Amino acid sequence: MTAHLGSARLERYLHEHIPISRPLGVRVVAAGADVVRLAAPLEPNLNHRQTAFGGSLSAVAILAAWSWLYLRLGGPGFGGRIVIQNHSVEYLAPAEGDFVATCAAPGDELWTRFERALERRGRARVTLDVEVHVGGLLVARCRGRYVALRAAAP
Amino acid sequence: MTAHLGSARLERYLHEHIPISRPLGVRVVAAGADVVRLAAPLEPNLNHRQTAFGGSLSAVAILAAWSWLYLRLGGPGFGGRIVIQNHSVEYLAPAEGDFVATCAAPGDELWTRFERALERRGRARVTLDVEVHVGGLLVARCRGRYVALRAAAP
Repeated sequence: MTAHLGSARLERYLHEHIPISRPLGVRVVAAGADVVRLAAPLEPNLNHRQTAFGGSLSAVAILAAWSWLYLRLGGPGFGGRIVIQNHSVEYLAPAEGDFVATCAAPGDELWTRFERALERRGRARVTLDVEVHVGGLLVARCRGRYVALRAAAP
Repeated sequence: MTAHLGSARLERYLHEHIPISRPLGVRVVAAGADVVRLAAPLEPNLNHRQTAFGGSLSAVAILAAWSWLYLRLGGPGFGGRIVIQNHSVEYLAPAEGDFVATCAAPGDELWTRFERALERRGRARVTLDVEVHVGGLLVARCRGRYVALRAAAP
């Protein structure tokens, strides 16, 4: 089940429920089953070298992965929980401009396994990759592991 | 060479040069050669589960590690650059309150090797560990690799 929440609704959801997304300047560029793409401006995320602060790149990447999984599980219709277990970032180049974090869907086979585990055991784990670009330049590669827990039966 | 920049000055420096530290609510609790400790309130860093957003924990941890290295290298007296290469976080427990990120100095031997490399080759790498606590509870363990580059001779 995939909710097509729409970019504007996801953006409102993030700004309301994860309020630091607002000063980070997060805008939702794409929100679908295949990809979630979040953009953020350089200016509020500057560091002392006039490039984007690594912690901001990392935070926006986590928001992208979390959002993709949230939408893929049904958005507001998913009554369970999504928990981040770990996260790692490789910083590849200075981010000298506005940046975009892209979380692409994992392969079909992985996703099928994830859905089956969630169905059977009430919990499942998935690793999500996020790339952060400034224009055409890949500036950071992120990987996070997320656990989804189904809501307990009423 | 260690600058005793003082907590208030480091806090001003962060708020001014890495402005996202301000909406994150970062306060400098300790700033010295042995340890840098940064605190942040839960409220601006809430997620949709009313605990602290993982991206905020990660960002404040990076600020703690960066600050420790910056101070240890002489603070404003260090003319070179500090660059983050990678960063990883293990999320151990939900952060249900204000949190504190603590970066402790690496062992003396590691530091001596780092200083020697910086002196001889103009660049050196160090891995820094940061723990994030809510009260007495360890909620996240972070590790980052940082490179320092000496300013070119004039």
